[in-house]
Amino acid sequence: MLTDFGDRDNFVGVMKGVILKINPRANIVDLCHNVRPQDVGQAAFMLKNSFRYFPKGTVHLAVVDPGVGSSRKAILVKTKDYYFVGPDNGLLHPSLGCEDIEGVVHITQEKYFLKPVSRTFHGRDVFAPVAARVSLGEDIRAFGRSIAGIKRLELAEPEISRDKLTGRVVYIDGFGNLVTNISEASFKSFAGSSGFRIAVGGQSLRRVSASYEEAAKGRLLAVFGSFGNLEISKAKGSAEKALSAGYGTQVRVTRITHKTR
Amino acid sequence: MLTDFGDRDNFVGVMKGVILKINPRANIVDLCHNVRPQDVGQAAFMLKNSFRYFPKGTVHLAVVDPGVGSSRKAILVKTKDYYFVGPDNGLLHPSLGCEDIEGVVHITQEKYFLKPVSRTFHGRDVFAPVAARVSLGEDIRAFGRSIAGIKRLELAEPEISRDKLTGRVVYIDGFGNLVTNISEASFKSFAGSSGFRIAVGGQSLRRVSASYEEAAKGRLLAVFGSFGNLEISKAKGSAEKALSAGYGTQVRVTRITHKTR
Amino acid sequence: MLTDFGDRDNFVGVMKGVILKINPRANIVDLCHNVRPQDVGQAAFMLKNSFRYFPKGTVHLAVVDPGVGSSRKAILVKTKDYYFVGPDNGLLHPSLGCEDIEGVVHITQEKYFLKPVSRTFHGRDVFAPVAARVSLGEDIRAFGRSIAGIKRLELAEPEISRDKLTGRVVYIDGFGNLVTNISEASFKSFAGSSGFRIAVGGQSLRRVSASYEEAAKGRLLAVFGSFGNLEISKAKGSAEKALSAGYGTQVRVTRITHKTR
Repeated sequence: MLTDFGDRDNFVGVMKGVILKINPRANIVDLCHNVRPQDVGQAAFMLKNSFRYFPKGTVHLAVVDPGVGSSRKAILVKTKDYYFVGPDNGLLHPSLGCEDIEGVVHITQEKYFLKPVSRTFHGRDVFAPVAARVSLGEDIRAFGRSIAGIKRLELAEPEISRDKLTGRVVYIDGFGNLVTNISEASFKSFAGSSGFRIAVGGQSLRRVSASYEEAAKGRLLAVFGSFGNLEISKAKGSAEKALSAGYGTQVRVTRITHKTR
Repeated sequence: MLTDFGDRDNFVGVMKGVILKINPRANIVDLCHNVRPQDVGQAAFMLKNSFRYFPKGTVHLAVVDPGVGSSRKAILVKTKDYYFVGPDNGLLHPSLGCEDIEGVVHITQEKYFLKPVSRTFHGRDVFAPVAARVSLGEDIRAFGRSIAGIKRLELAEPEISRDKLTGRVVYIDGFGNLVTNISEASFKSFAGSSGFRIAVGGQSLRRVSASYEEAAKGRLLAVFGSFGNLEISKAKGSAEKALSAGYGTQVRVTRITHKTR
Repeated sequence: MLTDFGDRDNFVGVMKGVILKINPRANIVDLCHNVRPQDVGQAAFMLKNSFRYFPKGTVHLAVVDPGVGSSRKAILVKTKDYYFVGPDNGLLHPSLGCEDIEGVVHITQEKYFLKPVSRTFHGRDVFAPVAARVSLGEDIRAFGRSIAGIKRLELAEPEISRDKLTGRVVYIDGFGNLVTNISEASFKSFAGSSGFRIAVGGQSLRRVSASYEEAAKGRLLAVFGSFGNLEISKAKGSAEKALSAGYGTQVRVTRITHKTR
């Protein structure tokens, strides 16, 4: 389960009740419920970077759904290894890029829904019961008709122009580490063996550290983090606060040409 | 499990350990652990609006217990479909209003408790082990003697006087939506087909929206939410903050009499 | 699982995915994920006070790991009743003091790791897969060579000097209760039947209450709490805020000698 429902309410717990009432043997795992409210992009980034760590056959139930009660579709996707259930607002799209898709269904079969379906909580009334049924092995075609495509959501890609690789902060973790959209591979391909400078929030870094511990307490450092991307961190502190950075903050890598040898 | 133990501590985790030590096959689900500290009324509202979503036979373990260590009773209630375990401080009362009650027991049988019983954490030492035993099928009469009644807690009801229906905010969710105690049914029965005005925090609304998306970003709206009650929301924002509202804030519905036709 | 990964990210969820991919029948329980960031001492205190509540055979997976990616060892400890997996930074040491240790292994066998092993998230790439394998019954010697000792971490002990017992706040719970390192036994052995005064943050208390409810709302009180230690609390409030106290704040017990009888 991935949602922006937070932990102050009974929403997630109630969804679990709904699932277990249908499939008492379901093993329900929380991926995260503290997606920033209604931030479909952040949720999509999290899901894309998480779903493959789960066992084959996992039903990924993702509900970040600012359009609940509007005309946005509820969808169900079957890939070779997984199922995905959620609103058709782009949330699932980045995760499906490299997967073998075996079917996409527009969920319309109301007999699976909790009645009356509320206008504000399809997580409980639509997505949870459908996910539970899917986990019981129900054929995805039972839930509605097949559709050809889903709403796209392109996660920001870094830009390369001559000597500059310009990325952005696309995720900030709970420690205040700034995760960029610059992958280790694209960084290395860009920087090659030349020197480089990483500029972010008025600060400049000239190397990528091998671990957090390499920098003295309070110092900024760059590191290839667990998402496989370049991260800006502060040793035993928060780079987010130190740099007053946010989602979208630019991180620029410049190649340094040595004029003399 | 429903508690106000929050997520900063090991309290909930330890209770789960205690339960699993007694019943390794227990499937433990968190309803919520972020009830406002010692707010029995909020917990009672949550439980009442959640427990029916869970499978028959569920043991609802609810511990919001400002009187822990005092003379308040520990109780166990069996209804037709569920068990409830918790302190006798009103927390369970609203949930039991429409249930077929099959037995109420004052938990006194110390052989089921963890020893020594602490003065401050009966969740661990009394309620968790009892709930675990109940989940194993132990007869409720094993835990103590039957009692006739439990402490009552009447959740606030709206007041109707001629042209005014005056409700209150009885729950504020993590998105800042203000849940009133005005049910969709009582609203519709009051408003009928006449016009109405909803007044809250100095603002006025003249319609109930069908979904959050109907209002432009930043606008207040009224909607029948997932609790089945009238809610005041702010599109992509927090009505709680926008209106400086809190628990108990008045929400007044006035019928508008059209003087001309 | 005990970590400082918080609940804003997908880190804990991903670790669970990794575990379930290896052992689909694992029953994963959260002890706490809101250890103060990188506070090994707090985590060690929590673990020491929690692990015995879990069933025999439990694999305690504890990751508070400021040295991730550095040369600190990853270790696996088997005691008579439990397994412990975590970084060798002192985190496990206080829990092992009274346990029968059957083996300590330096985890080096890379075939159990997720590849590529990230520099920043051994919770996912090293500890979770190892814990999952251990839960399947794999012999601990499979994971690396036995080592003789682990990094020590001595939790602060109170000091006794003539008429004074000086302890410290070693844990602050989510309600703002100040848990000291003064155990009920050491307090009683010190105070005996004489009078005493407990001084903390400029305030003075002359008795230990039997429960939170004994004190009027807003009053400070001392109580033997669920950790078995002396706690300073504020009735229906936060002693942490009332006393501007923190980790390390002194709590001093003085014996009062009655000069007259």
